Amino acid sequence: MATYIFGHTIPDTDSIVGAISLSYLKNHLGEDCVPARQGEVNPETKWVLEKFGFEAPQLKTSYAGEHVYLIDFMERSQSPEDIDDATILGIVDHHKLGDLTTKTPLEMWVRPIGCSNTIVKQMFDYYKVDIPKDLAGMMLCAILSDTVIFKSPTCTKEDTKACKELADIAGIEDYKTVGMEMFIVKSDVLNATPRELVTRDFKDFNMGGNSIGVGQLEVVDLSVFDKMKADLFEDMKKLKEEGGRHSVLLMLTDIMKVGTQLLVVSDEPEKIEHAFNIKLENGEVWLDGVMSRKKQIIPFLEKQFA
Amino acid sequence: MATYIFGHTIPDTDSIVGAISLSYLKNHLGEDCVPARQGEVNPETKWVLEKFGFEAPQLKTSYAGEHVYLIDFMERSQSPEDIDDATILGIVDHHKLGDLTTKTPLEMWVRPIGCSNTIVKQMFDYYKVDIPKDLAGMMLCAILSDTVIFKSPTCTKEDTKACKELADIAGIEDYKTVGMEMFIVKSDVLNATPRELVTRDFKDFNMGGNSIGVGQLEVVDLSVFDKMKADLFEDMKKLKEEGGRHSVLLMLTDIMKVGTQLLVVSDEPEKIEHAFNIKLENGEVWLDGVMSRKKQIIPFLEKQFA
Repeated sequence: MATYIFGHTIPDTDSIVGAISLSYLKNHLGEDCVPARQGEVNPETKWVLEKFGFEAPQLKTSYAGEHVYLIDFMERSQSPEDIDDATILGIVDHHKLGDLTTKTPLEMWVRPIGCSNTIVKQMFDYYKVDIPKDLAGMMLCAILSDTVIFKSPTCTKEDTKACKELADIAGIEDYKTVGMEMFIVKSDVLNATPRELVTRDFKDFNMGGNSIGVGQLEVVDLSVFDKMKADLFEDMKKLKEEGGRHSVLLMLTDIMKVGTQLLVVSDEPEKIEHAFNIKLENGEVWLDGVMSRKKQIIPFLEKQFA
Repeated sequence: MATYIFGHTIPDTDSIVGAISLSYLKNHLGEDCVPARQGEVNPETKWVLEKFGFEAPQLKTSYAGEHVYLIDFMERSQSPEDIDDATILGIVDHHKLGDLTTKTPLEMWVRPIGCSNTIVKQMFDYYKVDIPKDLAGMMLCAILSDTVIFKSPTCTKEDTKACKELADIAGIEDYKTVGMEMFIVKSDVLNATPRELVTRDFKDFNMGGNSIGVGQLEVVDLSVFDKMKADLFEDMKKLKEEGGRHSVLLMLTDIMKVGTQLLVVSDEPEKIEHAFNIKLENGEVWLDGVMSRKKQIIPFLEKQFA
């Protein structure tokens, strides 16, 4: 029986590449593993897969009776609905300890660093397994994406070290330029519907019994959103109602200016204001220096809703 | 501010030695760490500490406002009461994924193997830090204890490999004899009260809202319990009432015969019978081949009470 390896509900580049890179390593170590994904591949990830000549992992949303490894998440709200009927053999992740539990002992490689693929790189080193050139290129892009080309406060020395080593293997000299190319692809939001944008990189969290969804769009210039703000707000309201959510937040992150325009639709906007010690105007506010959902948004919401 | 490193509520040798060994490693890596413990040191652990010339870690049961690493557990029921007010920086463990959660990213070294100190040994190797001779001896004993000198089904090749390497460092040639000496110390149950015996190695679990406590005593000859069974049952009943528990189980494990006499006090004994497909007689039953609470008892209870 093959073991499936997959990331969170709405996959990002780290989730998709991590499923592929961890499967490669595990297969090399004698396990029979298959990469999978829970949702659609986003434009950035599609660009990365094509650039290095990989197929997207198979779409699979039900895992009852299966053996699985999780990559890049350990929250129930980001899991398949039947996760309790699967056997979780292991987790590779760089987030907070979530609310998933298991019935049996497992393997966990969790580090407070910028990207799951940095951990997978360290696993390759630990087991002394060579990384193929094209896979190294994809893993490099995953780390550049998660760390916003090292600008995110989540980025650590371990991430930059992994990038340098992966760039060497991939034969990519100017890897920051590759990162910028990738973010320019990511910045192309004009051909997408509001729903596609709000949910492109969206994660649900259970905070003290409240369902809170936080999306993020990282672009090289925030002005692309000028004419679509009203539509985004409209869709966030719908998404909030549809999912019975307490709040839907959307981070519009400017990777050049290093900051985030935060859009908020909430049953209790004053709680969001209090969490960040801010004042919303027409449901939005500029948060200077804020780049990371995981490190600069979620912990403050968690404290507020604890 | 120093970071505290400690194991589960009622510490065993792996918890105590792990607090010391992980603190040593972390201090060597530039962190300021202090080993601690949540409860009394048991006779086996006392023997190990004395043999290798170590003091017991400090007793500390409250951790509000502190930074902590957890070793050998990740269950809320085995945590200090104010764990939610502490910041968990990391977890080193070899159990199932428990119900603890964190607000921020953390470090987790979790493996499905026989002992937490095997993982700490691998961490020393990963960071290329030498293990002092006496510390290696203690870590060896922790692994021999947790794996019942390699007889437990939880024991893996990684555990036996770590033992051989630690024995080399410690200069101990016949380490299985040291293990037997330790288990003879552990088998001395005649001078203890029933409460001391029932709770010597006792863990509480939350299973589907039910509090279930499982103790274990490993001895070289089960006949030592012949005259104290009635007293043990009496105390298990008290312990069940005091803690509002659904069930209290006590594993009397014979490490030579390789099996466990299971004693059960429960609101629904038929559920325990069903979990293991057994029939209790006067609240007890012999389970041939059963050595491990973690691998051969807890998963079956979890399934039954899910």
